Amino acid sequence: MIGIKSIASYVPTAGLDNYVQGAKFGKDEEFMFGKIGASFLPRKAEEQETSDLCVEAARALFASNPELDPQSIDVLIVVTQNGDEEGLPHTAAIVQHKLGLSTRVAAFDVSLGCSGYVYGLYAIKGFMQAAGLKNGLLITADPYSKIVDPEDRNTTMLFGDAATATWMGEDAVWQLGEARFGTDGSGAEHLKVTNGNFFMNGRQVFNFALIKVPAHLHELLDASGLQSADIDAFCIHQGSAAIVDAVARRFEEQHPEKFVKDMLETGNTVSSSVPLLLQKHMLDSSWKRVAISGFGVGLSWGSAILYRG
Amino acid sequence: MIGIKSIASYVPTAGLDNYVQGAKFGKDEEFMFGKIGASFLPRKAEEQETSDLCVEAARALFASNPELDPQSIDVLIVVTQNGDEEGLPHTAAIVQHKLGLSTRVAAFDVSLGCSGYVYGLYAIKGFMQAAGLKNGLLITADPYSKIVDPEDRNTTMLFGDAATATWMGEDAVWQLGEARFGTDGSGAEHLKVTNGNFFMNGRQVFNFALIKVPAHLHELLDASGLQSADIDAFCIHQGSAAIVDAVARRFEEQHPEKFVKDMLETGNTVSSSVPLLLQKHMLDSSWKRVAISGFGVGLSWGSAILYRG
Repeated sequence: MIGIKSIASYVPTAGLDNYVQGAKFGKDEEFMFGKIGASFLPRKAEEQETSDLCVEAARALFASNPELDPQSIDVLIVVTQNGDEEGLPHTAAIVQHKLGLSTRVAAFDVSLGCSGYVYGLYAIKGFMQAAGLKNGLLITADPYSKIVDPEDRNTTMLFGDAATATWMGEDAVWQLGEARFGTDGSGAEHLKVTNGNFFMNGRQVFNFALIKVPAHLHELLDASGLQSADIDAFCIHQGSAAIVDAVARRFEEQHPEKFVKDMLETGNTVSSSVPLLLQKHMLDSSWKRVAISGFGVGLSWGSAILYRG
Repeated sequence: MIGIKSIASYVPTAGLDNYVQGAKFGKDEEFMFGKIGASFLPRKAEEQETSDLCVEAARALFASNPELDPQSIDVLIVVTQNGDEEGLPHTAAIVQHKLGLSTRVAAFDVSLGCSGYVYGLYAIKGFMQAAGLKNGLLITADPYSKIVDPEDRNTTMLFGDAATATWMGEDAVWQLGEARFGTDGSGAEHLKVTNGNFFMNGRQVFNFALIKVPAHLHELLDASGLQSADIDAFCIHQGSAAIVDAVARRFEEQHPEKFVKDMLETGNTVSSSVPLLLQKHMLDSSWKRVAISGFGVGLSWGSAILYRG
């Protein structure tokens, strides 16, 4: 079965000291650590395009998987809402060229934000099965530094730039189990770009996540015939420390520590947050079963079970 | 098997007399009919957003399929590169809300241009299979009137606004067969938007299509174990009359008339061109097997066999 064979990432080494930034807005280190969750926010260089971040992540993937011939990649999906160009062409085509992949690759972008990796996993696996393809590259790269106003205290302390690349193929250790998805466009206004600037109604988004995500995870477990105790770890979107903590406590009063929190040096990396967690915490673990969940812009959410095949 | 159950469309009744427009650029009716291929170019109203075109097409689909309960739609994909907002949120979320679909719908945009419908079919079928979903809505809507400069003679005579909606589900008459895809980002510059204006290098795009598409169709037939005579009709992207004619002659010297040409009152509707052909010519036909092909921005191309199940 097609599943996750490997994950790699690119996190720019340059960036912002978020404690310094917090101080500018009158926020102390306790708040920055406990509520925001990030002491450092990676930032791409001005001249780096979204496709360049994708290329860095893909090269890291190829470097750590010498048995994967880049020429054997036959499908490439880029999850982004901040691609290189103004709508067209799609970033995946530019990545195909910059990576020197075969022109026989099926390449397209999926437009989703923080829920994008969960959707992307099923989109790429499904496309591969439907079209008879063998090696897929699922890339996430949504550099919010392009759209975040450094004077907007609601957003500038939260988001970090990063990209990830996931190799999907046969004989994978990690398989995709049950999944559940949802969309509520009535909340579209809570996260949107106007005149090039990103706006977020943080209170509304927090409330949405706190109500929706724990219920969605319970629904997913019920549909899978699983109990919370059957899940070794919950790797959910790292929107902020406060939201991860609140979702964890609401879902799992007994063991909120099963919700992995790791965003101190990345911040909220949009669709890259879940694969960054999986790369760091799942791939080399002894875990048998992991629940993932992404939620945000749209509003959109998706949750799934990953399990050792 | 999941396949195409129905297709509907929305073509604005307002628009441009393309013969009048041609005269402005010194082009006679023979040129407009024989080379451009469109005597009329539908144009959305100024206040109509891309999501509104999607909604019109979806409502037409629901009206012609009373057995399809809109609340049973569990996945919605919008193929567009000219969505409502500036990158985010995705148009599919807005369509979910405007159509009053269930919030249990998986919704995302696929960013592709003229090749988008072919990719979209396999993306939605694959996603449905991978996630265990039952009723999919594949919408195409890419109103180039948003980005085409009416003074640019290379583009303003070509593009029409339209949207289509395809119902994907079980027990479908039309099934998806073999498919082949390709991407060459080295040609990204030939079709792109800069500062809100669409640019096309028509000569380069014409040459690309003329070289790539016939060869791609031959490759697809070979991979499918089919001869040209096994295909009842070729429904390829209606880039212009000249390109459809040239591809037809190059591919099929004997029977170029098997390449359906029907764009006189729509022009080049980007990712809507292939489903418009299928709706008008395939659904009520006695055809057994159809080849489809889309090609354009990226550069990107995709070809597939549709057959009666």
